[in-house]
Amino acid sequence: MEYPSKLIENAVEEISKLPGIGKKTALRLALHLLKQEKEGVRELSTALVELRENTQYCQSCFNISDSNTCAICSSYKRDGELICVVEDTRDVMAIENTSQYFGLYHVLGGIIMPIEGIGPADLTIQALINRIVATEGQVKEVILALPATMEGDTTAFYITKKLKEVGVKVTSIARGVPVGGELEYTDEITLGRSIMNRL
Amino acid sequence: MEYPSKLIENAVEEISKLPGIGKKTALRLALHLLKQEKEGVRELSTALVELRENTQYCQSCFNISDSNTCAICSSYKRDGELICVVEDTRDVMAIENTSQYFGLYHVLGGIIMPIEGIGPADLTIQALINRIVATEGQVKEVILALPATMEGDTTAFYITKKLKEVGVKVTSIARGVPVGGELEYTDEITLGRSIMNRL
Repeated sequence: MEYPSKLIENAVEEISKLPGIGKKTALRLALHLLKQEKEGVRELSTALVELRENTQYCQSCFNISDSNTCAICSSYKRDGELICVVEDTRDVMAIENTSQYFGLYHVLGGIIMPIEGIGPADLTIQALINRIVATEGQVKEVILALPATMEGDTTAFYITKKLKEVGVKVTSIARGVPVGGELEYTDEITLGRSIMNRL
Repeated sequence: MEYPSKLIENAVEEISKLPGIGKKTALRLALHLLKQEKEGVRELSTALVELRENTQYCQSCFNISDSNTCAICSSYKRDGELICVVEDTRDVMAIENTSQYFGLYHVLGGIIMPIEGIGPADLTIQALINRIVATEGQVKEVILALPATMEGDTTAFYITKKLKEVGVKVTSIARGVPVGGELEYTDEITLGRSIMNRL
């Protein structure tokens, strides 16, 4: 595709590096930005750079945070006996939205994916173990809330094995038919598991 | 939704101002940027600001350009007797991709949309008329390549009326059954028009 100017070509090139955004969408977004106030585009641009350069991670749970220790880890209302292990920040937000969980979190920063070259050492698994050991028995249960995929299961298996050595109870969130879900439209594997793991 | 940090909240806020991008996608993009090299994010950010601040428009056809006069308007290979009127840069790119048109362009910068508050004065219609008058009869034909929507038709009607006063021939791109299209799957209006406007 021939672009009418170098500036737009460069912008399309950069925008289309974002996941799920192709050249056509990138061009549409670039033309949209051209019609906006200069101030608005500067605000967007600054927000992106500041996000990348100034974002901090909680020293304890590795969630994104404005300070060294995140709001959840530093809250006296949270139950320090429970740690919920998740893949990333979005999962923390999803669980927080349920208002059903009052323990702490541990953000792995990904899951084990050998194809992508992500191994246990790239995640915060060792930090989780150190964290549990450091509390000297305060942590009673680690809840694994990982994706229900092969990679998620692999990661769960690895963490479970490691935590057994530490001697802490490890559980997983329940897999089953979603609330409001019809049995006939549920896939066989989910339905099979939900029978196996009946309460 | 509660975000884990002000920086990410701000970034999501800014990204979700883009058309077609909601809060969930914005968060996904923000988390993607957090995993990228700082240099990459700075490049994206600079590309956006430079696009907005330094983009020039061709003085003659109002297409996006790196200089005062765009590559098409300044090319001696293009036929100055033909002007093709389009809504925006994307249409110029689409027509250029056909390699079937060798005349000049005129970019309106939008179409007449009363609901959005866009009237003829917000577009480059008067500049088109001035441009044609200034060439003293060099322009023989103006081809309208506007969207086949109610707004596109309104704009075409308005421009046709204005250009009649100038005394230049005005044509429109053909509407009809797309090449490769089956008659039975073509909507009635298109099919009806394609019979009416048979060659």
